[in-house]
Parts: sequence; C-alpha cells; structure tokens
Amino acid sequence: MTEDNAAGKRGPAPCPVTRLWTEADLSAGLILGLDHARAHFLRSVLRLERGAHLALFNGRDGEWLARIDGLGKGWCSLAIEAQRRPQASGPDLWLVFAPIKRARLDFLVEKATELGCAALQPMMTRHTAVSRVNLERLQANAREAAEQCERLDLPEVRPVADLGKLLDAWPPERRLLVCAESGAARPIAEVLRQEGPETAAQPWAIMTGPEGGFARSELDALNDLSFAVTVGLGPRVLRADTAALAAIACWQAILGDGRSRPPLRDGD
Amino acid sequence: MTEDNAAGKRGPAPCPVTRLWTEADLSAGLILGLDHARAHFLRSVLRLERGAHLALFNGRDGEWLARIDGLGKGWCSLAIEAQRRPQASGPDLWLVFAPIKRARLDFLVEKATELGCAALQPMMTRHTAVSRVNLERLQANAREAAEQCERLDLPEVRPVADLGKLLDAWPPERRLLVCAESGAARPIAEVLRQEGPETAAQPWAIMTGPEGGFARSELDALNDLSFAVTVGLGPRVLRADTAALAAIACWQAILGDGRSRPPLRDGD
Repeated sequence: MTEDNAAGKRGPAPCPVTRLWTEADLSAGLILGLDHARAHFLRSVLRLERGAHLALFNGRDGEWLARIDGLGKGWCSLAIEAQRRPQASGPDLWLVFAPIKRARLDFLVEKATELGCAALQPMMTRHTAVSRVNLERLQANAREAAEQCERLDLPEVRPVADLGKLLDAWPPERRLLVCAESGAARPIAEVLRQEGPETAAQPWAIMTGPEGGFARSELDALNDLSFAVTVGLGPRVLRADTAALAAIACWQAILGDGRSRPPLRDGD
Repeated sequence: MTEDNAAGKRGPAPCPVTRLWTEADLSAGLILGLDHARAHFLRSVLRLERGAHLALFNGRDGEWLARIDGLGKGWCSLAIEAQRRPQASGPDLWLVFAPIKRARLDFLVEKATELGCAALQPMMTRHTAVSRVNLERLQANAREAAEQCERLDLPEVRPVADLGKLLDAWPPERRLLVCAESGAARPIAEVLRQEGPETAAQPWAIMTGPEGGFARSELDALNDLSFAVTVGLGPRVLRADTAALAAIACWQAILGDGRSRPPLRDGD
C-alpha cells in the first residue's frame, strides 16, 4: 500500500496488485477456496499473509476485492468483500493464427491477451510446420496475461481447425483482416480507416499465416471471400508473431478500444 | 530454388533466402572472407556448398548477390556478383526504452528491428530494475533480425543513458511519443493522425518506461517538453515490451512506411 493510501487520501478501499482469475461465482460474503497451486503461489511465492487483499475476476461478475481469510500449506480461503469494477468486455476481435514454435507461441498468446483479443483460434494451413498445439498451455498463458493486464475476462482458446473448415463455417458478419507478405494487399491503416469506427462494434478477426507464409491457393481463396480483406504491414518481412501483434495493435488503436485508459491504481 | 526459377520464368538471377550482414564494402568482383562463426553457420548449419548463392548487405551499398567461392572447416570465401537492391533506409524512428529482463529484452530488440526502428536507446529511469545491459547481445539480436526481415541496414544500438541526460541533450526537432499507463494521455492513433503524414520525414522517437512505470516526477518532466507528447495504448496495462511493440507498429502503420510492400521473392 502506498503512502497516499495509508494516509487515507483515496479512502479506505485497498488497491491490491495481485489479481486472480477464478471459475467461481463472485458476490459479497462468499468464501472461496483456492486450489493447491494457487494457494502455494500466494503463500510461498508472493508471501502473502492472512488479512492481505487481492482482486478476483471470473469474466462474468466484474472485479472483486477479496481478503485472505486463512491459509496454510497448500490451502487458502478467501473472503469476498466488495465489487471493485463492474463486468466489461473488450471488442469482439479474434486472432486466427497458424501455430509456431513453443517459445514464440507462448509470447504470442501473452501479447494477444494483453492487446485485448476476445478469442485465440489456432489454424492449420498448407505450410504450417507445427503439428501439435498444447491448448492447456495456451490457456494457462492467457490466464496469466489476463491477470497481469487488468482484463476482466479471459480470451477464449478455441480448438485447432483447418483453414478450409474455418472458412466454410465462417460467420459472414465477422470481418476478416488477412495479413499477407506477398501478393496484392492494401496498407492496414488505410483499410481500418476506411472501414470506419462504426464497424468497431461488429465482430472482427485478424488472420496470420505460418512462418512459411500462406500458399498461393490459400491466398487466392481468401481473396475471393466477401468478408475478407488482405492487408500489408510495411516493407519488412515480419515473423508470424510480429505480424499478429502489429496487426492487433493497429486494429485496437484505430478501430478498437485505444481511446480508453487503464483503471486507476494506487499512485495514479 | 523453386520450379518457377529453374524453368527460367523469372530470369536467371538466383533469389537466395540466406541473407548476411557484413561490415565490408560490397561491389562486383570483390572476394570476401567470412569469420569462423559465420563460415561454420553456412557450412554446418545451413549445409550450403560451393557455388550456392546468398545475399549480403552492409547498410551502405544495398543488397548484393554473392556466391560461395570456397569453404572448409571454419573458413568461407564469397565472390560478390551483382547488386540486387539499391541502398534504402527506413524512417528515422528511435526506440528509447528502459531495459527489462533478458528474454523479454531479446524479444523486444528482435521485434523493434523487424518493425523498422533506426536506433535502440536503452535508458535508465527511477524505477528501472535492470542495472546492466549487454550491448553486444542487443547488437547480435538486432543483426539476426535484420538479416531475417529483408532490412538493408542494422538499427544503431546506443549506449545506456539516464533519462535526465537524454532529455538534456535531446535534439528538439526529434518528436517524442511517451507511452504512459497513468496520468493524462491522448490516444496514440489520434495523436499520430493529427501530426499528419508530412511529419513522417522528420526524426521521431518512441519512449517506454520500465515494468514499474515512470515515476510521477519523470512524467511531469516529460509533459513539460515542447517536443514530447504522452500517448495511451488502451485500457489494459501492457508489459513494457508489449507497449513498445504496439506503439512502433501504430507509428509505422499511420506515419511510417506501412504503405510499402516487401521485396519480391521466389514464388511471389
């Protein structure tokens, strides 16, 4: 707690730095038991003690203040006190991506979560070199990033699907930005500006290919779709993870929630 | 080499995938000897043989086609044949950043290079937790990323400097975008649009703070500068590396070289 808070300038409500996602319902007066791993994390890694405060969110009930009611080796109970923020969700932006090697995939999931993607859709393409995706690992990385970045929900991690099947089942109202290094493409900022801020409330998706790029036949198929537009990201050949992050950042800044500010914390 | 090329549809010029940066001057007819590490890389990792082609660049003479003239254990000589692209450089955009932990710093340097930063300036601030920066490691990461992304130059890796000293010596014609999570800030896309494309030819810099954020006194000092503008990147609290990448991507898309396309390669 900072001096400001100790001196009561901002009122008595504690402003905990630790945030945890939980599946459980959240409302005032409930007592919540944590699993072994998280109890261990609070007690042995963060060295929190009985009476310490933290924040909880579950993607439905907003963010809640909770107090450690009791903890010991491998267990912890939390008393849920008061809502700190009502539930809110970001724009409905999917990231559809060809899986890449593990360290880069971990990073991509972390960044896409921080940058506010609503869903992460791994996709198999002709040149995709990675054949297995550990969805549990993706979910764990997404959860950790969501806890850290003040999101009130987790991105949905969707099962792996083939590009063709994805497109066959594509909801036509969901606009699709395809990032491509070769072939015809329009600059991303120009496309997003022309789409206009009124389309930000619509569902959108950003699609990036594997390290080897899309096959020509895949790009041709994508170019034929009424809901898709192929965009370029400048003169350098970007790695798959860089392209995804750059496109998401541009989308959020131009069409998404780039005008909003983070919630106030101690010292702000 | 692809079938297209073997069949001569694109003419006889080979289009090598391997690109190397070199300090040496490049012009037709020169013979260039590689150091032990790079010779080993070509022979034992890429398994290239005598007669294979690769591309060279040095940041001054454009990109050149070279042929392996001879190679053995720990040595390799290259015959420089013809220029493939004239020298070009991207926008004059610096990234000024508080150093972060090693894995994230490696990643940040790679991404900032891919996204076209002209210089990387590590900066010490009040809340910077990392006290030592391995500049050689930064340079090696930047070189590898430049070779991979088709850049024709390397970003300049500048020595670590204190924020105060950087600002004292700041060239006033270089516009400065400060990414801040707290305090007053305008949305980055709005600021970049208002600056207008005619400012893209000017020198610019993007500044990001450490994981703990800028100190209040530092933000106050930055807000007083005529050449600086504080921008926000949306409602989520971004890690330092995410903030830097998002800001660079937006700058390139809106003001920078986002309208250009990568050079043609085989199969394009």
